[in-house]
Amino acid sequence: MISTPFMKAFGVACPVVLAPMGGVAGGRLAAAVSNAGGLGMVGGGYWDPRWLETELAIVASSTDKPWGAGLITWSMTPGVLRQVLDAQPTALMLSFGDPRPHADVIKAAGCKLICQVQDLEGARWALEAGADLVVAQGTEAGGHGGSRGTLALVPTVVDLAGSVPVLAAGGVADGRGLAAALMLGAQGVLVGTRFYASTEALGHEQAKARLVQSGGDHTVRTRVFDIVRGYDWPNGYTGRALRNAFTQRWHNDEAQLMAQQGVEAASFWTAVQEGDYDTAMVWASEAVDLINEVADAATILHSFMEEAQAALRRAPAYLS
Amino acid sequence: MISTPFMKAFGVACPVVLAPMGGVAGGRLAAAVSNAGGLGMVGGGYWDPRWLETELAIVASSTDKPWGAGLITWSMTPGVLRQVLDAQPTALMLSFGDPRPHADVIKAAGCKLICQVQDLEGARWALEAGADLVVAQGTEAGGHGGSRGTLALVPTVVDLAGSVPVLAAGGVADGRGLAAALMLGAQGVLVGTRFYASTEALGHEQAKARLVQSGGDHTVRTRVFDIVRGYDWPNGYTGRALRNAFTQRWHNDEAQLMAQQGVEAASFWTAVQEGDYDTAMVWASEAVDLINEVADAATILHSFMEEAQAALRRAPAYLS
Repeated sequence: MISTPFMKAFGVACPVVLAPMGGVAGGRLAAAVSNAGGLGMVGGGYWDPRWLETELAIVASSTDKPWGAGLITWSMTPGVLRQVLDAQPTALMLSFGDPRPHADVIKAAGCKLICQVQDLEGARWALEAGADLVVAQGTEAGGHGGSRGTLALVPTVVDLAGSVPVLAAGGVADGRGLAAALMLGAQGVLVGTRFYASTEALGHEQAKARLVQSGGDHTVRTRVFDIVRGYDWPNGYTGRALRNAFTQRWHNDEAQLMAQQGVEAASFWTAVQEGDYDTAMVWASEAVDLINEVADAATILHSFMEEAQAALRRAPAYLS
Repeated sequence: MISTPFMKAFGVACPVVLAPMGGVAGGRLAAAVSNAGGLGMVGGGYWDPRWLETELAIVASSTDKPWGAGLITWSMTPGVLRQVLDAQPTALMLSFGDPRPHADVIKAAGCKLICQVQDLEGARWALEAGADLVVAQGTEAGGHGGSRGTLALVPTVVDLAGSVPVLAAGGVADGRGLAAALMLGAQGVLVGTRFYASTEALGHEQAKARLVQSGGDHTVRTRVFDIVRGYDWPNGYTGRALRNAFTQRWHNDEAQLMAQQGVEAASFWTAVQEGDYDTAMVWASEAVDLINEVADAATILHSFMEEAQAALRRAPAYLS
């Protein structure tokens, strides 16, 4: 088995953390990842309190291993933060915004603070907040993220973080990515899209089918799904999704979409409910090329570990 | 020392290839990289025949090791291709366009064909062209490139390429990146920006100084430097440069820049000549964070190998 200091600090057997994907990483998937040895995290998304109550109850009752939850920093309220902390997760991940104002209440609750960052400025905030773990998320990631690529961001954040452990996120969908992350100085990986295409994920079957069928040349970082849904994301963050008829129509025509958001929103939400992914979004990493089937979370995690160990065992063979 | 099959096939002692940076990778830098054990490549750029004649003569007379040259596929002519082949490089790299129409003449000259690709469609073209080596270039790269990140692109191209060796490019500026590339299944790396900040590079001292001072949060993929110079790059390719006053003014205002290109071009070319990098571009990778000094090419290559070997030697320690 692979061993890194972060794993000991967080009490997990595998250096793989589930990305807290809103609406996708519910309690069942988080528990499945934790039970298989990783760190499962429930995705708080835009904090529907009743959804959160349900999913936090599921994860808490479905595993006795460490688990966590993730919130969107700029969107969360003191109330949702309290709700999550009251469920006593091992770790809480904040992403997309300045975590510093929230660190004290999280640490006072005995909860580990994970900060996901997209650039060096964010990494500095995370370290000032006293993060127990920094996730360096590259732009390859599915869903929301920034503009810097994973391969160069990770070693730079590792250098900055000193003794604070760093995970790599964005573009990792198999064990080769995990092994590469370790070479860059990271102590593990945070994985989203690969677990979206799992049996336990809350996503629609049609969305999972599209992930299996699609390639990484056909994703796009875009604001159109935020605009139509009325989410006012701060500058610098966009969402990576599979290209579809909706991105074809509106990407690069955002001003027009804003002008008729009211009309478009109605049909958009209908498409979301009906699983019509020509209109609704399927958030997807560029690593979607590497996803060829829907599997259960334990199988996915097992493959990650096998592939990573195989790659690491080969490493000395390069040295002649 | 590190050993991969590509190295044997190309007759080099290190799995590090110099990116053929136009105007930067001249004969002196290419020979320095080749003499230090890598594969040096002269950057053909926009094929000024006299510049090429000079630089090809320098590299041919400065090393008896394998060396190469690189051309921009969409911009080259049969004449420039013949000029380069007549200098008898070990390898010729084509990038940014369809290499298939040119493969026969290159192979007939006894020259190895390297194809740099930015996505899976490009990788398929490269394999159909019979490439001896495929370079999977991620968007982190300095200078011209595409939109896919290195970390997810490389293993996907490796899977597609089968027995054809693959190098990783884009975001690699130290040996950790080389070790990571090997874990992804690549057989080495192609490195640009780190060698731009070398004593042998033709770039202006002020440009090299900016590379040393700048961080990866401050680069941008943009068309503005192509527009002002009148280079009609095909869709999908942009250039990554350090942000400066010129990008601040024109990036996202490209239509206006096109409208007054004539006026802007005059002052722009003056800035290029004078080394005024508030206006002229400094192409730079996102990995510029990892570049902290100008050094000679042999020292850079030596550091790469030391760092990569250290990382690879640590790999088994992750397996407990």
